[in-house]
Amino acid sequence: MGTGRLEAFSDAVIAIIITIMVLEFQVPHGDSPAELLPLLPVFVSYVLSFVYIGIYWNNHHHLLHACRTVTGAILWANLHLLFWLSLLPFATGWMGENNFTAVPTALYGVVLLMAAIAYWKGKLSPVLCIVAIGATLVLSWIAVAILATLALMWLIPDRRIESALPRNED
Amino acid sequence: MGTGRLEAFSDAVIAIIITIMVLEFQVPHGDSPAELLPLLPVFVSYVLSFVYIGIYWNNHHHLLHACRTVTGAILWANLHLLFWLSLLPFATGWMGENNFTAVPTALYGVVLLMAAIAYWKGKLSPVLCIVAIGATLVLSWIAVAILATLALMWLIPDRRIESALPRNED
Amino acid sequence: MGTGRLEAFSDAVIAIIITIMVLEFQVPHGDSPAELLPLLPVFVSYVLSFVYIGIYWNNHHHLLHACRTVTGAILWANLHLLFWLSLLPFATGWMGENNFTAVPTALYGVVLLMAAIAYWKGKLSPVLCIVAIGATLVLSWIAVAILATLALMWLIPDRRIESALPRNED
Amino acid sequence: MGTGRLEAFSDAVIAIIITIMVLEFQVPHGDSPAELLPLLPVFVSYVLSFVYIGIYWNNHHHLLHACRTVTGAILWANLHLLFWLSLLPFATGWMGENNFTAVPTALYGVVLLMAAIAYWKGKLSPVLCIVAIGATLVLSWIAVAILATLALMWLIPDRRIESALPRNED
Repeated sequence: MGTGRLEAFSDAVIAIIITIMVLEFQVPHGDSPAELLPLLPVFVSYVLSFVYIGIYWNNHHHLLHACRTVTGAILWANLHLLFWLSLLPFATGWMGENNFTAVPTALYGVVLLMAAIAYWKGKLSPVLCIVAIGATLVLSWIAVAILATLALMWLIPDRRIESALPRNED
Repeated sequence: MGTGRLEAFSDAVIAIIITIMVLEFQVPHGDSPAELLPLLPVFVSYVLSFVYIGIYWNNHHHLLHACRTVTGAILWANLHLLFWLSLLPFATGWMGENNFTAVPTALYGVVLLMAAIAYWKGKLSPVLCIVAIGATLVLSWIAVAILATLALMWLIPDRRIESALPRNED
Repeated sequence: MGTGRLEAFSDAVIAIIITIMVLEFQVPHGDSPAELLPLLPVFVSYVLSFVYIGIYWNNHHHLLHACRTVTGAILWANLHLLFWLSLLPFATGWMGENNFTAVPTALYGVVLLMAAIAYWKGKLSPVLCIVAIGATLVLSWIAVAILATLALMWLIPDRRIESALPRNED
Repeated sequence: MGTGRLEAFSDAVIAIIITIMVLEFQVPHGDSPAELLPLLPVFVSYVLSFVYIGIYWNNHHHLLHACRTVTGAILWANLHLLFWLSLLPFATGWMGENNFTAVPTALYGVVLLMAAIAYWKGKLSPVLCIVAIGATLVLSWIAVAILATLALMWLIPDRRIESALPRNED
């Protein structure tokens, strides 16, 4: 098996994960704008997870860059990453529906931490996830801010960061 | 990363969006034809959204036409479009289940507007979406008519329109 | 756009349709074998629809065989077929949960009829679907038998049928 | 049709199956850690099924190895395998929600047995599945242990096993 099929399978799984998250939005029965208010935290958590899964997809090809042939170990390392990403819709829904209280936010951080470990490159992401998990003991919004900052660090289209991050984090 | 993998990922996400919309149809418990009646507006909204997602898929390759390499900015511009399209099943379900009342129809228009802006080519689509959103203040069926007309403008297999639209709208 | 991307998109949609049908199986809360009994008609309808979608997938490449370039008309003819196939999970669930009573079985026949018309090749399939829809007025199990027979006609690995069907039906 | 499209379709179906299993996790309403406790058996069954579907995906290309052209019989043999795999999310959910009691665990074993038969290579997997199904009459945890051991036999990155298994099981 070449890396092509591995990439195609991973893309399909990531595409499904990023899309089924939207099923966490329960369609409200009434039709007033007030019906949307309780969905606001769900929406915020959805945006955060959408960005994270986008980041993992954008960087997934780095994981395979050095591989010429796909061994069993690579297949399972890849499935290990997909496993933790597959739990993100659940963690996202639980965190959003509970308005970012401590325990669901900590679980969300744990899932991101496990995905960062499974990605196995870089140390900044796991460390910040651990800090975020610890921060839920004080105030869960600090954890959300840390995780959002970590996502932004991957996103900002600054060439210095683009050339710096691949060395530190990639 | 070449445009091939970007196209494949986008196709997968769009394929999932267009298909999971059907999960909004709750299977009724009874078996009389009357059970289908309340599903009629859901069906109408499903057809409209199916056509819109079909339009976006059909035109998605234009978005990548001028790109030779895929930069981070292109990846995120593409994910930005997919994000708004991913909210269409929710907006479709809310509009259909509420029989096209004002607020859900306005939200549906907003999601289409944001997708049109994210697609970033052409001015007709965003303008008509804004007009449709405003029309929900008067009568939401006018908004539905405007959005249906906008979809038809992309659909009619008239060569003059086919040669004209790519210049105006594409 | 070549036929490759059209095939890939269609494959993805068909793969999702054939898989999300299984979501109609509500996991029962008890753990006795008796809990599975009410699921039997759902299972039978699932098998029938799985076979039908398999048939459409297996024959989908014939639809594109004569096409060299993909025009807008072909794109929409293909989306038209996918639209009706996308309604099959709903029709399957309604028919199965109501134990193959008349109206849901007739609706199931209508969805298969529309898909057969959208496939646009052959006359046997639409005619047998119409006969099956009519038969639900007498006894819906006759309709199920007709639709199951139609599926089997596509399945039987008999070389004479394999060489005959493509002429009549393909 | 070449094997490429068959592989792509199978990959898509397997990717969807492995991902929609996560929808069995009902997001709990409360936000205490205690809310996660009842989800533990669901999580264990999810891990087991994730590994099994990963195994089938990793080995799926062996199924097509000797095929040069794709005949109708191969298409349907492949769909037969995908059919049983598609029932795994249901069986997983039922087993997990009932905390691995006898009947749901036996059904889970039956689905794995049917998939092993549909895969049609090797005798060890079907035999161990049958033993596991029988073991549910005594104690269902023995069955779970047998099925987990069978999964591990495919997983252990031991070269002797890697070279031995393809002969016995592949």
